Amino acid sequence: MASNRRLPGVLRQFAEERDWQQFHTPKNLAMALAGEVGELLAELQWLTPEQAAAVMDEPEAGARVRAEIGDVMIYLTRLADVLGIDLEEAARAKLAEVAVRYPVEQAKGSAAKR
Amino acid sequence: MASNRRLPGVLRQFAEERDWQQFHTPKNLAMALAGEVGELLAELQWLTPEQAAAVMDEPEAGARVRAEIGDVMIYLTRLADVLGIDLEEAARAKLAEVAVRYPVEQAKGSAAKR
Amino acid sequence: MASNRRLPGVLRQFAEERDWQQFHTPKNLAMALAGEVGELLAELQWLTPEQAAAVMDEPEAGARVRAEIGDVMIYLTRLADVLGIDLEEAARAKLAEVAVRYPVEQAKGSAAKR
Amino acid sequence: MASNRRLPGVLRQFAEERDWQQFHTPKNLAMALAGEVGELLAELQWLTPEQAAAVMDEPEAGARVRAEIGDVMIYLTRLADVLGIDLEEAARAKLAEVAVRYPVEQAKGSAAKR
Repeated sequence: MASNRRLPGVLRQFAEERDWQQFHTPKNLAMALAGEVGELLAELQWLTPEQAAAVMDEPEAGARVRAEIGDVMIYLTRLADVLGIDLEEAARAKLAEVAVRYPVEQAKGSAAKR
Repeated sequence: MASNRRLPGVLRQFAEERDWQQFHTPKNLAMALAGEVGELLAELQWLTPEQAAAVMDEPEAGARVRAEIGDVMIYLTRLADVLGIDLEEAARAKLAEVAVRYPVEQAKGSAAKR
Repeated sequence: MASNRRLPGVLRQFAEERDWQQFHTPKNLAMALAGEVGELLAELQWLTPEQAAAVMDEPEAGARVRAEIGDVMIYLTRLADVLGIDLEEAARAKLAEVAVRYPVEQAKGSAAKR
Repeated sequence: MASNRRLPGVLRQFAEERDWQQFHTPKNLAMALAGEVGELLAELQWLTPEQAAAVMDEPEAGARVRAEIGDVMIYLTRLADVLGIDLEEAARAKLAEVAVRYPVEQAKGSAAKR
């Protein structure tokens, strides 16, 4: 797992070595992604907003949150790779659309979207 | 949105320009992440495994899937940034753990985990 | 849709009349359930805790939340029916387990579980 | 937990006895609901459609699916109760809307919606 290789390729090889490509269909990976997001939510759900903002200062809870974020990123990267989508490009393309819909002056401080 | 700037910084500036940091708490962003994953699932839920595998060949459905993946990546990146987590590092650290738990020889072809 | 018939049977007939049973597999319905929960989260995600507590006093937002809760219940009922599970019994059985794990005296006021 | 009492009241008392109402805000319960749906998805994600259709015939996997469905129902019921929504009524009201949008003749066999 040399860190100079890009993550999608690293994960693809990881799956191939274990014969897991058969399980890594778009629907299955989307379900796994949702499952990991659910585990991430579970780490935050009973915290107050203040506790959640400081969760990374708690060694044990912080490590769990980091691990769950890692899991979410693993499945999101894997799903995008299986679909032939570049994650960063998809995010930047979507952001460009959002920028048009929510120009700075009109969007300022409104939660209408995000 | 110069493409040579890293995505977390681009998204941070995007939120700051619109005064959206007040909404971007860990709990809110985790909920938004789950919401976008839900929209992604909705694109795939009624497809057969075969249709889902070929979804990117359909111009309209493929564009929607790509946009939803972009949205998921936007909120995941934003959540990680607010928590001070490097997404790629978190994924690689988690993968290293999984590699220990599922050595190639034992994991081969088994769906026990993934 | 006479209200004296039980909901699982009403939904089963609704699906059968439209030839939708072919789509209503456990995996598809679980994805649809997660998709609807995502839409429900989207209604609440940017609200403050105080705003969320009062969301049903807002006619439009309240109607949207009610409709999303209805959608979640529809797919949960449908999924349980397809799997041959009685929703209420499953909830009561699970609650009995939780009651053993979290006796009143020890659980009081702790967020350890819920 | 007498079974002749309605589930929302049973769950409300369960929470009150443990002083858990303070955690049971709409946002927290919606997150918990999504978390439990994630666990349910995790039970089904790597199964083939055929395996998933027969999951209740497997004693261990079937018991886990039933328990997860119970958890989802618990949080959905609790969330609806906190918001003052009757679950069954909300589902029936939504179904009536869907029936108008997808009349039997036009919807037959199409996955356009569900």
